[in-house]
Parts: sequence; C-alpha cells; structure tokens
Amino acid sequence: MTDTMNRSTTAPAHSELDPADGARAYELDRQYVFHSWSAQATLDPFVIAGGSGSEVWGYDGVRYLDISSQLVNTNIGHSHPKVVAAIQKQAAELATVAPAHANLARGEAAKRIVEKAGPGFAKVFFTNGGADAIENAIRMARLTTRKHKVISTFRSYHGNTGASIAATGDWRRMPNEYAWGHLRVFGPFLYRSEFHSTTEAEECERALQHLERTIQAEGPDTIAALVLESVPGTAGIFAPPAGYLAGVRAIADKYNIVWIADEVMAGFGRTGEWFAWQGQGVNPEGVVPDLIAFAKGVNSGYVPVGGVVISPKIAAAFDERVFPGGLTYSGHPLAMASIVASIDAMEDEGIVANAKMIGEQHLGPGLRALAEKHAMIGDVRGLGVFWALDLVTDRATREPVAASVIGALKKELMARHVLPFAAENRIHVVPPCVVTPAEVERALVALDEAFTAVTQG
Amino acid sequence: MTDTMNRSTTAPAHSELDPADGARAYELDRQYVFHSWSAQATLDPFVIAGGSGSEVWGYDGVRYLDISSQLVNTNIGHSHPKVVAAIQKQAAELATVAPAHANLARGEAAKRIVEKAGPGFAKVFFTNGGADAIENAIRMARLTTRKHKVISTFRSYHGNTGASIAATGDWRRMPNEYAWGHLRVFGPFLYRSEFHSTTEAEECERALQHLERTIQAEGPDTIAALVLESVPGTAGIFAPPAGYLAGVRAIADKYNIVWIADEVMAGFGRTGEWFAWQGQGVNPEGVVPDLIAFAKGVNSGYVPVGGVVISPKIAAAFDERVFPGGLTYSGHPLAMASIVASIDAMEDEGIVANAKMIGEQHLGPGLRALAEKHAMIGDVRGLGVFWALDLVTDRATREPVAASVIGALKKELMARHVLPFAAENRIHVVPPCVVTPAEVERALVALDEAFTAVTQG
Repeated sequence: MTDTMNRSTTAPAHSELDPADGARAYELDRQYVFHSWSAQATLDPFVIAGGSGSEVWGYDGVRYLDISSQLVNTNIGHSHPKVVAAIQKQAAELATVAPAHANLARGEAAKRIVEKAGPGFAKVFFTNGGADAIENAIRMARLTTRKHKVISTFRSYHGNTGASIAATGDWRRMPNEYAWGHLRVFGPFLYRSEFHSTTEAEECERALQHLERTIQAEGPDTIAALVLESVPGTAGIFAPPAGYLAGVRAIADKYNIVWIADEVMAGFGRTGEWFAWQGQGVNPEGVVPDLIAFAKGVNSGYVPVGGVVISPKIAAAFDERVFPGGLTYSGHPLAMASIVASIDAMEDEGIVANAKMIGEQHLGPGLRALAEKHAMIGDVRGLGVFWALDLVTDRATREPVAASVIGALKKELMARHVLPFAAENRIHVVPPCVVTPAEVERALVALDEAFTAVTQG
Repeated sequence: MTDTMNRSTTAPAHSELDPADGARAYELDRQYVFHSWSAQATLDPFVIAGGSGSEVWGYDGVRYLDISSQLVNTNIGHSHPKVVAAIQKQAAELATVAPAHANLARGEAAKRIVEKAGPGFAKVFFTNGGADAIENAIRMARLTTRKHKVISTFRSYHGNTGASIAATGDWRRMPNEYAWGHLRVFGPFLYRSEFHSTTEAEECERALQHLERTIQAEGPDTIAALVLESVPGTAGIFAPPAGYLAGVRAIADKYNIVWIADEVMAGFGRTGEWFAWQGQGVNPEGVVPDLIAFAKGVNSGYVPVGGVVISPKIAAAFDERVFPGGLTYSGHPLAMASIVASIDAMEDEGIVANAKMIGEQHLGPGLRALAEKHAMIGDVRGLGVFWALDLVTDRATREPVAASVIGALKKELMARHVLPFAAENRIHVVPPCVVTPAEVERALVALDEAFTAVTQG
C-alpha cells in the first residue's frame, strides 16, 4: 500500500461542470426533495454530478472512489459506455410500451436472465424494483401452494411496500389479500449467533433445526414461502455456512414450501457469480431455488427495474389461470435495453470474474490485513466485491461501536475522497464489480488512515 | 367525419425495421416473458417496435393510432424529441445515484412538480411508480395522524403491492406494520349509483353522507387516510359531481383524516389540467388535498417513476423524525431528467391546454355523436383526453355487454389500425394529450365502423 496513489483528479471534459450548478442542486434538494429513511432537517447531502467506472464527482470536479456502489447497485460501474449507448438508442426508438404488448428488448432481456439462472428456470416477470419483485414472488408462492404464511429471517431486508393492494377497491385486491401471516426466524450468522454455536457446522445444523421446528409448530400446511437473501446484505453480509442452503431446499421440498431467493443485492456479479446461490462457497451442493427476485445489479440501476425468475413448474401453473399481479412499467423497453447491454458487457468483459478475483486476491486479503492492525475491526466477512467490517468496542464481547464512531469514519473517508456505505456498526466495502486492484489499494489506504485517525482522535 | 383520412403509413426511416425482428420478439416473448394479469398460455401479444406522437408501429411498419396511451401513460406521446434528448444526455452524465445524495436533475424535477401542484405543497418524495407512491402516502398519513385505518372506494385501483415490508426482518418493518385496517366505501357514480340517486346533486349528497356515516361507525379516531382517485380511471372514468371534493375536504378536516389524491392516471394533463383536482369542473370550490400520488403522465413513463407531493404540514412532521420509508431508485437522475424535460415541453408546447381543447371541442362532441348512432353506447363520460364508453345491452337496464362484444370491438379496431384500451364492458378512449383533431377524427371513424360491424355481425 502506498499513499502516493492519485486520489483525486478532475472530471473529464465532456462534463462541463459549473460549481453554481452544485450550489443550485444543494439548495433545490433542501427545499423540495423529501429523502428516504431520514429526518429531513438533519440532512447534508453530498451532491453528485457525474460518474465513471468506480468513481463519482461533484461540481467541483473532485473524484471520489465509490466503495458504496450507490446502495450496492452499480455493479458495472458508472456510465458504462455500452449501457449508456443502449439506453440512448432505445430512448430514440421506443421508451415505453404497455406490458400486454410484446417488445424485442424485453424478450432478449428475459432470455439472458433465464440463461444466467440456468436450467431450473423458465420465465421472467419484470417489476419496477426489488420490493415488488418480492411482492410478486410471494404472490406466486401463495397461489401455487394454496397456503398463505411467509417465513423470512430477522436480520434481512426485502423492500418497503405493504399497503397499496389492500387499498385497492376492485377485484384485483381479492386474490391478494395476504398482508398477514408473515413470520420471521433467525438465520445462521456465527459471529452473532442466536444458537450458542461455536463452529459454522454447528450454526448450520442449529439454524436448520430452528427453521424446521418453527415450520412444524406453525403448521406446514399454512406455510407458502420461505424468503431468504442468498447472502444477507444490508443486515451485515454473512454468507450462509456450507450445507445451509441444501438444508433449506430439503425442508422446502419436505413441506411443499416455495424457496424464494432474494438476490436483489447479491445477484449479478456482486459475489463473483451471476447469482450468489450459484457459488461453490455459498452452495456447495448446488441446490436450486424455486423463484429468484432480482433488481439493482441486473442493469446497475441505470433504469429502475426488478423482477422474478420463475421455475418451469410455477410458470406453468399460470398457463391457464390468470396471474393476479401487474404493473404499468413491467418489461419497460428502456430498462430492458439496459439489461441486455449490461449482461452482454459483463459477459464480454469478464466483469463477474473480475469481482471474484478482486475478492479473493485483493479485497479479502487487504481487509483482513487491516483487521490485524485495527482492534476495532471485530470481523471481516464477504466474498467478491461484497464485504463488511463489523466494528466492535471489544473483540471478546463483540459489543458494536457507537453510531458516533461510524459517523467519524464516514467523515474521514470522505475527506480522503472515498464514498463509503455504512450500516449500523459496520462499514460495507462494496465497490463496483469493475473495480481495479489499484482502486482497491486506494480504498485500503484510505480505510487504514481513517481507522487510525478515529482510533487516535 | 371522413374515411378518406390516411389510416396507415410506414414508419420513419430512422427505424430500420426488419420483420424478422418482429418474429423474434414474438417468439422470445412467448418463451421467456411472464405477463401481468394474464393466463400465460392464452396470450397473443401485439409486437411494438417504435412510436411517435400518437402512433406506434410493429416491425411491418404499419402505424396504429394509439388511443390507449399504453395504459393511460404516454401523455406527451411517443418519442417526444425533447424528452428523448434529455434521457440521452443524462444517461451519458450519470444514470443513477443513491437517494441519500443530491442531484441537480432531482431538485429541478421536484421544484417543477411542487410548482404545478401549487401553494398547498412543499416537497416531493420520489418512488418507482404509482403503487409505491400510494404506499408512501399512506405511511405518511398513518405516522402523522397516529391513526391506522385507511378508507378508499370500491371501483378504484391504487396499485399492486402489499407484502414485502411485512416480510422484512429488520427494524424498518416495525413502523410499517400496517397491512391491515383497510376499508372501502362506495364513491359517487350516478350512471351506476349505489345510492338510488337520480341527479348528480343527490348522488353527491348521498355519497358524502355514506362516507361520513362510515367514518363515524368505524370510529374517527382510528382513521388515518382517505385515498381517492380524483377522477377514477380504470374503474370507468367518472369525475366526481360538483361539491363532492369540497365535502371530502370538510369531512377530512372535521375528523383529522389525511386526504390522499391518487393522480397516477388522472394527473399531468390527462384531464386537461396539471392535476385533475385542479379542474373547475371536478372541483369548483378549489379545495386542496394533503398528499398527491403521481406516476405515468409526469414523464409519460419514459423512465419508470412515481412519487408523492407533500403538504408543508406533513413534510415538516418529518423534519426531526425519521421517515421510515425509502427505495434504491428514489429520485433516480435518469427519471428526473425525463420529468424536467417532459414538464417543460408540456408547458412550452401547450400540451395540457391541447388536451382540454380536444376534450371540449373534438372528443367529447364526437363520442356523444357516436352514442346517438349506436344504441350499445349507454353512457359517454370524460374530460380532456380521458373518456369512457360504457357499453350496455339495454339502455334502460344498463346491463353491461358481454366480454365477447368487447373482444370483437378490439379486433375491429385493430383491423382499422387503432390500438384500443378496454376494461370490463367499456372502451376507454385515452389518446396522448398531443393528439390532433385529425387523429381524433380518425379514431371516431374507426370506432363508428367498429360499432357498426359488431352490431351487424
């Protein structure tokens, strides 16, 4: 590691940057924009004017290394020229079309996604994002199993919707009146085990037992779906222990429960695989889920989109029976064209393989070396370009650090022109899949300096 | 009316159309794409390759007059050059950014929307579409009133989500566990009155009495929100009688209930106003809702987007308190740039005024003339470019026509290169707001011929 690396350069000439635009952007934001998950008066947003690859910049032209990927989203990096060109071309031809019609970009996108998912999948239902992908996956599970309860885990995030169909006054409400019957169990997470485990194997066995006992006690005939992030993301990036997904598959089969793999954050390269459940480390037995929910990485969020990849059996269940779900922007041509270009570019340029290599050879070793140096780093977890530093006041008790420590780290990283992603007591190191070894070094230097500054400060 | 008007021309040279692409689009669709609200095996989708203004075309280059606006969406028409250019420019600069940051396009979009909504509004929260706009409006209402029930109407549509937040395992679920406590009342609709009314004034008075009595009987202290389409759309396009919205406002004030105006379909020019509730005919007293949900027409769906326009009082309630809602694509720059360009073009080119003029001078009179001629047309309702033909077997009993009649009408219209929107026993005539008098004539001729063919057939 060296601190002579160029941490900031000016943005390219094609962006004519005027600092007055930055001031205007900030003022308009504070006056007119209502922000997610925030108390509005406390905000001091960072203004972003443009981006390229792993970097973003404001109107002063200073480049920041984006190790957040804008909420773990821009897997292909910012402003990938092939995806930009595809959006520009499709915008000129036809931006939108009603979902009932057909469109070439939609078919091409669906074909590529099904092929990446593999032979266990047949069709794609497109949505606007991850939340409504989960909505529709749950709807499919409930209607095909004719059961209603949904199990998910504590320490998960599956999106943010839950009321609009219940407010609807026409028939489309009736087959969807399921906004009840959700329950949550604990999943496996050795570093913060709920099962008093001391090894991964023990954590796996106990988590599966807990899941099966809950199903038995709730009543297997009432449970339609099991929704699991293949690698839980916002909750702390903890891949399941070897054997867990195979155990899930067996339990799902035994009780006729649909396994919905939430790959919104983990999918499309983030873990160094097209889908996280396909990874040897995550799923050595190679078991296959019934439905896959996706969004984000499928097109790096260049156009809002999400969807559900559907097994042949579940797809066929709606051959003669109406699927009671839909949305105006389902299979939106502009979004579809960006998916086609993004998947093709990721394939052609080896971007998924790059993410895997970066995790194995650079980010993993580099973050573990940081942990050797800084006692605050209690645990380093991850794979691909999907890593979390679990920060503690004491390595023995694993007591999480206070929010003020995370705030101070964010400030130190921003001062070093590194844009971080923080969640609870953690820094998530989640750069785009196109990140280079040199950029990883730059991030590691900044992290090292930031931890030193905060520890000493 | 004349049938000498040119009903089909070939598409412009810039679209290099290859019929083989049309065949491929169809095949890929049937193999890989799972469609909304459908039994998958029964579909025979129309392949759309491109569009311009009020027309779309397939790969054979034959132009269809789009009187559906692709699910009442493309208010500005297809491929508006200024909106296309704005998307292309923003795609090159920065397609996406996390919602926590600020971006100039987002501020400019929010400013324009607040200004169009008028002095009763302060901020905009952006979502991915209409359903999650309603979700978040309901969330704001519940949190600010500290009450939980939501009243909407039968004969309404508010979107299609209802489960993902309930499945979520982290704290973000807890302030959102509201997927219960929804109830529906009947709204005013004289042609199919639930109140035995014979005049609009009577329907208005009785619907308001029914609403207030329901609130009293449910318990005013339990009711957070009243969600109403300002002009119900998919349910049949029936503007409320004069006085109804003023009555709603008074009831909402009396019982401390948040009035959420659902303008997803009716907003941004569709009724000849920026928002339907602003129209003199719809709301002669000029009362103002507390929250407005929008999507579709705000950018004609060129990029998926929606949002909530928020009153100063409700916005301020979240100054110091965290708003527990959010989504990755909130305030997406590409969507925001398309909103800015679309609103500016609609303003500069008088597109909202055109919709009003078309309704008053062409579509309204033309459709009423059709009803004089065809007994099947039981009622003609609408304003702007937002019209429904309510089709009946008998004008006295108002018995709806069978689905087969609607199917036959759709076929006849398609054969005349007019792309219709059908719902239950109705044909909705909902062209883009840019539709010309000549195009309206073309639609009226096709409708006239189609009704004749189906009546005789």
